[in-house]
Amino acid sequence: MRSAVAPAAPGERPALTAEARATGIDAAAAAARRVIESLLHAGDSAADLSGVADQLNTIADQLSAQAPTVDERIADMWSGEGVTRHDPVTGPENAIAPPMPIRGLDDGSVEAQVTLHLPYQGPPGLVHGGVSALLLDHTLGTANFWAGASGRTGELTLRYHRPTPLFEQLTVSGRQTAVDGRKIWTEGAIQDASGEVCVSAKGLFITPRPEAIRFGRG
Amino acid sequence: MRSAVAPAAPGERPALTAEARATGIDAAAAAARRVIESLLHAGDSAADLSGVADQLNTIADQLSAQAPTVDERIADMWSGEGVTRHDPVTGPENAIAPPMPIRGLDDGSVEAQVTLHLPYQGPPGLVHGGVSALLLDHTLGTANFWAGASGRTGELTLRYHRPTPLFEQLTVSGRQTAVDGRKIWTEGAIQDASGEVCVSAKGLFITPRPEAIRFGRG
Repeated sequence: MRSAVAPAAPGERPALTAEARATGIDAAAAAARRVIESLLHAGDSAADLSGVADQLNTIADQLSAQAPTVDERIADMWSGEGVTRHDPVTGPENAIAPPMPIRGLDDGSVEAQVTLHLPYQGPPGLVHGGVSALLLDHTLGTANFWAGASGRTGELTLRYHRPTPLFEQLTVSGRQTAVDGRKIWTEGAIQDASGEVCVSAKGLFITPRPEAIRFGRG
Repeated sequence: MRSAVAPAAPGERPALTAEARATGIDAAAAAARRVIESLLHAGDSAADLSGVADQLNTIADQLSAQAPTVDERIADMWSGEGVTRHDPVTGPENAIAPPMPIRGLDDGSVEAQVTLHLPYQGPPGLVHGGVSALLLDHTLGTANFWAGASGRTGELTLRYHRPTPLFEQLTVSGRQTAVDGRKIWTEGAIQDASGEVCVSAKGLFITPRPEAIRFGRG
């Protein structure tokens, strides 16, 4: 996931995901997450929604009036600290992200704990299968970064072993298993609170050629 | 995706995704999407964010105060018109969803057009690979519903052929290719505006046994 990021110096452990701050855009994104979830939770019938759309549109208008061009903003997003703050899985600035902080373990793997709520629902009370795929794709990419060899996703295979529950702590893990030239193999899983594997993933990643790295996926 | 839904009468074509209304929760969710995107677009440095978090938290507090219990709400979500209004891909009530309306074609396939913006960004200017997986998983499930035989995702394989661009119209398609007993095979793809395939997907779906359908994924 981090091809554009300078590698950490030897012996230095890079942060794998951005930490949420208590102020500024992170606080606003955290509050926006509460709005998303509370809208879904309240629903049309129970809540008095008169004025909510107007209030939210006013906030959006004010923010948009102060925004740089999209190109400027994208350049700014990617010029920073080396860990993305805006991605839809771990980014504290992105209200779509749960967000799910990922940490690197000494054994070379990565791990995250996350509890998902109504916005991530597929079937009743269960995590949407595509959301599991989203979390695992990102976790495998982060595992590659942690292992020191990153690439673009070439192929990703997900196996759904049992339903993944909402409202309980899930553990999402990833580990690079092999590197052969520009090819990288990586595995991961989502486990429920009792440790049962709900979804497993295997990915083949391809290290981009140097001239492609700036805009490379991986 | 729609195991819990009563099948359409012969000759009747069910709507594949919910239509967004201009009022109520759909309007509030649409405005919340604008807040999510404008936060990411404005960023910390350009925007005056003082008070934004407070305003959003106040809205969330008011909605939460009127919300039913989560169990009541989930039951309500799934007792409705037969097409989910809350899922994270097509749901007009879910601000995480782009939302992406999917339509059934006469040849038995399904298709959607969607343009993705900053909240769905992975690498600079490109769609996050996990977001592509999320859209395709849902589209394949909808293709199964349209074809008349649905199931839980057993296995999903994604191949990433080229980067998927933000800010241009993508076409997401799906088609059921084979059914053998309880096993269903389904394929799909995301194409960019020039028709090039960016990501392709193949899925194996398993029809749940009748007693498991109410809580079945598929």
